[in-house]
Amino acid sequence: MLFMVRINVKLPSDWDEKKIEEVYAAEGKRGRQLMNEGKVLRIWRIVGKRANFGVWQADSLEELHENIQSLPLFPCMDVEVTPIIKHPSTGAYEAEYGQLPQI
Amino acid sequence: MLFMVRINVKLPSDWDEKKIEEVYAAEGKRGRQLMNEGKVLRIWRIVGKRANFGVWQADSLEELHENIQSLPLFPCMDVEVTPIIKHPSTGAYEAEYGQLPQI
Amino acid sequence: MLFMVRINVKLPSDWDEKKIEEVYAAEGKRGRQLMNEGKVLRIWRIVGKRANFGVWQADSLEELHENIQSLPLFPCMDVEVTPIIKHPSTGAYEAEYGQLPQI
Amino acid sequence: MLFMVRINVKLPSDWDEKKIEEVYAAEGKRGRQLMNEGKVLRIWRIVGKRANFGVWQADSLEELHENIQSLPLFPCMDVEVTPIIKHPSTGAYEAEYGQLPQI
Amino acid sequence: MLFMVRINVKLPSDWDEKKIEEVYAAEGKRGRQLMNEGKVLRIWRIVGKRANFGVWQADSLEELHENIQSLPLFPCMDVEVTPIIKHPSTGAYEAEYGQLPQI
Amino acid sequence: MLFMVRINVKLPSDWDEKKIEEVYAAEGKRGRQLMNEGKVLRIWRIVGKRANFGVWQADSLEELHENIQSLPLFPCMDVEVTPIIKHPSTGAYEAEYGQLPQI
Amino acid sequence: MLFMVRINVKLPSDWDEKKIEEVYAAEGKRGRQLMNEGKVLRIWRIVGKRANFGVWQADSLEELHENIQSLPLFPCMDVEVTPIIKHPSTGAYEAEYGQLPQI
Amino acid sequence: MLFMVRINVKLPSDWDEKKIEEVYAAEGKRGRQLMNEGKVLRIWRIVGKRANFGVWQADSLEELHENIQSLPLFPCMDVEVTPIIKHPSTGAYEAEYGQLPQI
Amino acid sequence: MLFMVRINVKLPSDWDEKKIEEVYAAEGKRGRQLMNEGKVLRIWRIVGKRANFGVWQADSLEELHENIQSLPLFPCMDVEVTPIIKHPSTGAYEAEYGQLPQI
Amino acid sequence: MLFMVRINVKLPSDWDEKKIEEVYAAEGKRGRQLMNEGKVLRIWRIVGKRANFGVWQADSLEELHENIQSLPLFPCMDVEVTPIIKHPSTGAYEAEYGQLPQI
Repeated sequence: MLFMVRINVKLPSDWDEKKIEEVYAAEGKRGRQLMNEGKVLRIWRIVGKRANFGVWQADSLEELHENIQSLPLFPCMDVEVTPIIKHPSTGAYEAEYGQLPQI
Repeated sequence: MLFMVRINVKLPSDWDEKKIEEVYAAEGKRGRQLMNEGKVLRIWRIVGKRANFGVWQADSLEELHENIQSLPLFPCMDVEVTPIIKHPSTGAYEAEYGQLPQI
Repeated sequence: MLFMVRINVKLPSDWDEKKIEEVYAAEGKRGRQLMNEGKVLRIWRIVGKRANFGVWQADSLEELHENIQSLPLFPCMDVEVTPIIKHPSTGAYEAEYGQLPQI
Repeated sequence: MLFMVRINVKLPSDWDEKKIEEVYAAEGKRGRQLMNEGKVLRIWRIVGKRANFGVWQADSLEELHENIQSLPLFPCMDVEVTPIIKHPSTGAYEAEYGQLPQI
Repeated sequence: MLFMVRINVKLPSDWDEKKIEEVYAAEGKRGRQLMNEGKVLRIWRIVGKRANFGVWQADSLEELHENIQSLPLFPCMDVEVTPIIKHPSTGAYEAEYGQLPQI
Repeated sequence: MLFMVRINVKLPSDWDEKKIEEVYAAEGKRGRQLMNEGKVLRIWRIVGKRANFGVWQADSLEELHENIQSLPLFPCMDVEVTPIIKHPSTGAYEAEYGQLPQI
Repeated sequence: MLFMVRINVKLPSDWDEKKIEEVYAAEGKRGRQLMNEGKVLRIWRIVGKRANFGVWQADSLEELHENIQSLPLFPCMDVEVTPIIKHPSTGAYEAEYGQLPQI
Repeated sequence: MLFMVRINVKLPSDWDEKKIEEVYAAEGKRGRQLMNEGKVLRIWRIVGKRANFGVWQADSLEELHENIQSLPLFPCMDVEVTPIIKHPSTGAYEAEYGQLPQI
Repeated sequence: MLFMVRINVKLPSDWDEKKIEEVYAAEGKRGRQLMNEGKVLRIWRIVGKRANFGVWQADSLEELHENIQSLPLFPCMDVEVTPIIKHPSTGAYEAEYGQLPQI
Repeated sequence: MLFMVRINVKLPSDWDEKKIEEVYAAEGKRGRQLMNEGKVLRIWRIVGKRANFGVWQADSLEELHENIQSLPLFPCMDVEVTPIIKHPSTGAYEAEYGQLPQI
């Protein structure tokens, strides 16, 4: 089950650089775990912003919520979850050409 | 070069079913061409809407514009283009685990 | 899997009363089918508007999309899908008091 | 009398974890009381957010206001109250099939 | 039970003056009935707009919906319903000075 | 001259309960004075929010501004002033049935 | 009594040039009458738009509404009325320097 | 060259009354200077808000920016600049009736 | 005097291709005239939209309005005019390095 | 590859003048470097605001992100990136008249 998740981060203005670095290190570590577990399939930085688009996979909505909430930066995030499904063009493409190339 | 493109379609209320079918057939055909040319890498239907998220690849901004504009439904579309780049977590993941699995 | 779906209906201004009645009859019939199949669990009219909140159940996102799209008024709808899960208070309540009363 | 109540919570950025835990414990306790009194009939967590949708029952608007305001997190909440009523499809369903199943 | 109801009217651009007059006559008649039944307690025109604020009374939410929907201009309306209750200052005033003057 | 005034209050997050109580006591006192002077004709709490709708009377715009600004909570308020006038339906009602009942 | 009135005009797309000219001629005539009666004190075109800011004078809110509504383009207008008063700086200026120069 | 400038002021919540008075005194002084130099032609308080509409004159855009930025409250302001020009109705009025009366 | 002008075009849905071509031809011709007169200094297509950003030069606001309004597509345009001036960094750059390269 | 970048700056309210001066000095220095490297082609101050429009050049989206993020004021910025391309009118102009004049 797939979800497009857009995350915008707004850090409190009183965090110093050390605090920011620490939290981002923890954030990165948790992000890689989620990727390794196949829960974050793809993630892209939005150019010019502290924000990203991610394609999240989840076997249940409970799992998706738990995974988003497990991010150390969750309290500073504005999160927008959009359920997505295979587009008919993908099926038609695959029938004609086979599997899409890796991205 | 990657772009997250969100497309919302709003059909004129006076199109009959035959007109809609014809335009959607042309739309689907053009979509598959763009996928086959590696210009639309992935596309997902947004659940409950005539809308989609697509990951578009382009060698130039001119090419991206021309490709979006080539869609038969372009005059009925509201299009939002967001430039995206590899997220640092992806690089860190690949260094640790190798290539991400196919999606 | 549960979703809160808010639907706002905007009819074309050139439909006459007969057309409206026919479409609403078909809409009502499809709605009851979805309720009978356990796909629309609850639905409430929003006071003062042609709009409703519904709790939809779906085994997959594909099924949810297909069901929403099967509504005869779909082309006149603005649909907002929000994935929802059991709230921790519900579990805590059930542990203390047993099943919630029927609504 | 029913109301769909959407609550978004925004915690002050200077609360430490102990403070957050204490307030959430009090919040949970008050929530269960309201459920036990039949004032909050159902409540669902919105996936990916500190937010929920609840179906509130009230015998009067005064009672509804008092109950919402009694929540310990009320000062941190953005609350949206939407009056709702039985949808015609529910009555038509019940006439044909009897009571809706428990949710 | 009281509700502040804000109504904005947007007429279709193809109605001629005769049609507008007829609908407004019917609208005015229905409005006076609702006032006479004590369902619309007060109504004010918003200066510079085809819009109004009304204080509606209803014994139930069903009654409120039915009454709003009974307005001949309902299909051209954008309606916003806000549940309201006695403000604490009113009670404090009445305790000190007695009933508020008629408005 | 009448105005519909919607006031939303947003308290600074660092006020303690004693401060809040003091300011609200002063606010209530000033509110009752304005009611006694016939400047605030009616005021209703908006259900579920620290917000209200008020019907304000003023002999001039200067007076209205001074009165709104005299509220102790003015610095924490978001105020929306909408000029309103007698609705044609009110005049038509009075011609047919006499004075509207007290609210 | 003064009001800042912002008017945006949106013409129906099926008016031909003759219709537009006729309505604008009537609009201009009525505008000059209102200026001559001292009801529209000043009016400025907003650069790049079919829109204007006007300073309207009215002895009552009823008069203001009637005057705005008397404009032939009223059905195509989006109107925003903001009550304004003398700014304290104006009084202070006049005390120091006398009357402001004509604009 | 004329501009309609709307200014909304949002004071930091930690300023005490003395600080506010000082800044407003400086603000008023600078405002009167700008009026005396013919740069602020008219200014009106918006009723019920810490906000104003002003008609600013400037010989260049650079001058306009410098003048707005010279206000002591500039860091607390949200400023909206709209270029305006003589409305055709003004010219037509003047041709028929001569100069508009002073406001 | 410079202005950043953002133009979004929304064509009526009943124009056929011939009509669109004709209007766009006229639009293009007028655009090139404005460029040749030094009134439109630069113009860029916004990727994925019928929209553009343009840097317009004008000796007066009247001239700017007249030029924008002279575009054949003006009735289908949503236009946003933002006054802009030389940025301090440009002056500092020129002092250090001389004229900026042509774009 | 070109991008229109709109930057709005919102400084924390607790920075004193010295802090502001230091950060702005660093910001200006980095800005001039980016101009010298041909990465910021043009930049204009938006009149009346701490905001600017810039035309940015980048050989890749990664480079654009890195350059925006390198600005010392980045944490206080709201950044909006819009991909832009040569407008057809520019090509048509150049074919007829040659290169556009320097701006």
